[in-house]
Amino acid sequence: MSKPQPIEYAKAGKKVRAVFDDIKASRNVPDVNNFWKYLARDPALLKRTWEGVKEVMAPGALDPLTKGMLYLAVSVTNGCAYCIASHTAAARKAGMTEAMFGELMGVVGMANETNRLANGYRVPIDAMFEP
Amino acid sequence: MSKPQPIEYAKAGKKVRAVFDDIKASRNVPDVNNFWKYLARDPALLKRTWEGVKEVMAPGALDPLTKGMLYLAVSVTNGCAYCIASHTAAARKAGMTEAMFGELMGVVGMANETNRLANGYRVPIDAMFEP
Amino acid sequence: MSKPQPIEYAKAGKKVRAVFDDIKASRNVPDVNNFWKYLARDPALLKRTWEGVKEVMAPGALDPLTKGMLYLAVSVTNGCAYCIASHTAAARKAGMTEAMFGELMGVVGMANETNRLANGYRVPIDAMFEP
Amino acid sequence: MSKPQPIEYAKAGKKVRAVFDDIKASRNVPDVNNFWKYLARDPALLKRTWEGVKEVMAPGALDPLTKGMLYLAVSVTNGCAYCIASHTAAARKAGMTEAMFGELMGVVGMANETNRLANGYRVPIDAMFEP
Amino acid sequence: MSKPQPIEYAKAGKKVRAVFDDIKASRNVPDVNNFWKYLARDPALLKRTWEGVKEVMAPGALDPLTKGMLYLAVSVTNGCAYCIASHTAAARKAGMTEAMFGELMGVVGMANETNRLANGYRVPIDAMFEP
Amino acid sequence: MSKPQPIEYAKAGKKVRAVFDDIKASRNVPDVNNFWKYLARDPALLKRTWEGVKEVMAPGALDPLTKGMLYLAVSVTNGCAYCIASHTAAARKAGMTEAMFGELMGVVGMANETNRLANGYRVPIDAMFEP
Repeated sequence: MSKPQPIEYAKAGKKVRAVFDDIKASRNVPDVNNFWKYLARDPALLKRTWEGVKEVMAPGALDPLTKGMLYLAVSVTNGCAYCIASHTAAARKAGMTEAMFGELMGVVGMANETNRLANGYRVPIDAMFEP
Repeated sequence: MSKPQPIEYAKAGKKVRAVFDDIKASRNVPDVNNFWKYLARDPALLKRTWEGVKEVMAPGALDPLTKGMLYLAVSVTNGCAYCIASHTAAARKAGMTEAMFGELMGVVGMANETNRLANGYRVPIDAMFEP
Repeated sequence: MSKPQPIEYAKAGKKVRAVFDDIKASRNVPDVNNFWKYLARDPALLKRTWEGVKEVMAPGALDPLTKGMLYLAVSVTNGCAYCIASHTAAARKAGMTEAMFGELMGVVGMANETNRLANGYRVPIDAMFEP
Repeated sequence: MSKPQPIEYAKAGKKVRAVFDDIKASRNVPDVNNFWKYLARDPALLKRTWEGVKEVMAPGALDPLTKGMLYLAVSVTNGCAYCIASHTAAARKAGMTEAMFGELMGVVGMANETNRLANGYRVPIDAMFEP
Repeated sequence: MSKPQPIEYAKAGKKVRAVFDDIKASRNVPDVNNFWKYLARDPALLKRTWEGVKEVMAPGALDPLTKGMLYLAVSVTNGCAYCIASHTAAARKAGMTEAMFGELMGVVGMANETNRLANGYRVPIDAMFEP
Repeated sequence: MSKPQPIEYAKAGKKVRAVFDDIKASRNVPDVNNFWKYLARDPALLKRTWEGVKEVMAPGALDPLTKGMLYLAVSVTNGCAYCIASHTAAARKAGMTEAMFGELMGVVGMANETNRLANGYRVPIDAMFEP
């Protein structure tokens, strides 16, 4: 019983089904991916998380492709295997080509490197960055 | 002597000056920012890092603004104060508006949240993400 | 030979057996879990780690359930798969219900989100938090 | 202009003021802390974040003190200076004594240590944790 | 197509083969390990990364064994499973004994613990560390 | 009262003084650094941490300089400002030259980069690393 189990639509309660229906309609997919089936163990967490993701990923000042790549860059930095798999797929669906993915990885790798160089050399923030 | 000290152009050796000159020319700035002055303690590290950054950030399949925002998203996730300051400035210079920054922060925050939800619920990767 | 191998009780030396015996008696379990069998490669590390864990997790100003949930919250944040599995089991044994787990995940997710928002907006510490 | 600036109540728009008013009423404080003044740069982010925090921290299966300590444990693990300061203050207000804080730190420290030991020894998950 | 695929030597282009040849010659191995086969999706990333690794790991003020253990300590801290596996193997090849590995793990564990204690207790930097 | 305060020797109780005395004697220093003065808020945590550090850092299969550099590499990766300052000083005292520090930073930076490349490309572990 220590390992969480997913909740499938057929066994879901009314509140969970409402969220699953909204995900399926918003994304035009026949079923939700595992992430949502596991969160469904806690319907309030499921609802709040989906509403947050939907709001954050909606087109605005940034387009969905850029947002998808930012999401992937964070997931790669944190080393979340599930998130890397799902957000790579999502970003490709939004238009990320293999060349874009390669450049994204180049930036993410370099940023993780220089973040540590700045830490280790204890670099003070330049006055021009503190207006 | 335990705290690293920056190396100013006037006191820099030939190899360091060559890198500083290239940074100033590439970015059209009168002086390099502190990060490079500290890395200059190790000329080989300075040269390799600058060449890597220059190559990674060059326009390609992704434009400089997108790359700058990806760099910032990683820096925010890692909590590197110097890097957040310098890459916020760089991204703004590349065209990041305040609305874009707010949306970037929304995505970064949500990604850091759902990365942990996926971890904690031990969500297995869907078959459709494993082709 | 690059992958560490576990040491089973039957093949363990005297120092390792003493630690295994203490773990089994303290937790009233028939065998130790894999974590300890791998640490047993280095008997001094095994002993020091077990003594630290035993001392830290003993009931005190905080009860074992609260301590178990704090341990889990850290493991989820770090994305340590083994630790999430073992400390979810341990916290459930100490009384964590599914509702508690859901709320714990809600807090852990939100904390990981707002930690990055505070980073990215470079929020200065309020004077009232610095007495 | 690269460093974000806070928005004070007197200069805030209607949407921001509504959130600030709700924070002040919910927490019975005369003013909101800096975190909210900076998030106010993006009113949608401010509103979503506050509603998430309010929902997550409401008493439920876990009491506010436990939730406050979980929040602090994550913030300490991530090394977010602002968050450590503000959530230490919040947890103390909710009843965390110095003895509790000391034990919390003991658990957080040990968890961060054993998370890496499990990583480094590549410990496989025990069958009993996978039911 | 969302999951990246490796590129084997037989199917690699000229630029990738040149890097693979250099890796094989430098390390005296019959084939490159998976890491390089995946990076080969982006030949520029492959080339830059290999040149960086080769330069960084070359003997200098630090010997290859020390460098290999530093690389492993970082990988364990970050929880990168692939990197832990490959850099444990590399460090053993460079001379890391099981006793050395055990002591390395002891240091890495303790450092991850005291890093959080310093965070949580908000310890100010001593004047003697700021000359 | 939310910000922890240090405990000076003159005001310390018997248990804390015993630890402070041992640190001063072991390291041959006139006073302990701030880290220990803050941990002294919790005498059991202070004692356990000091004993762990003393045991881990004692010469063994690895010499003190190598151990000091491993400690620093972890601290740089985690971005712990206090720890970077104190462990840079400690490693220099143990013999780390500026050239060694530069090479250490090169390795730490590269490891943080390639850790993310391995994550993002979802590289499977080679059979040869799994004997």
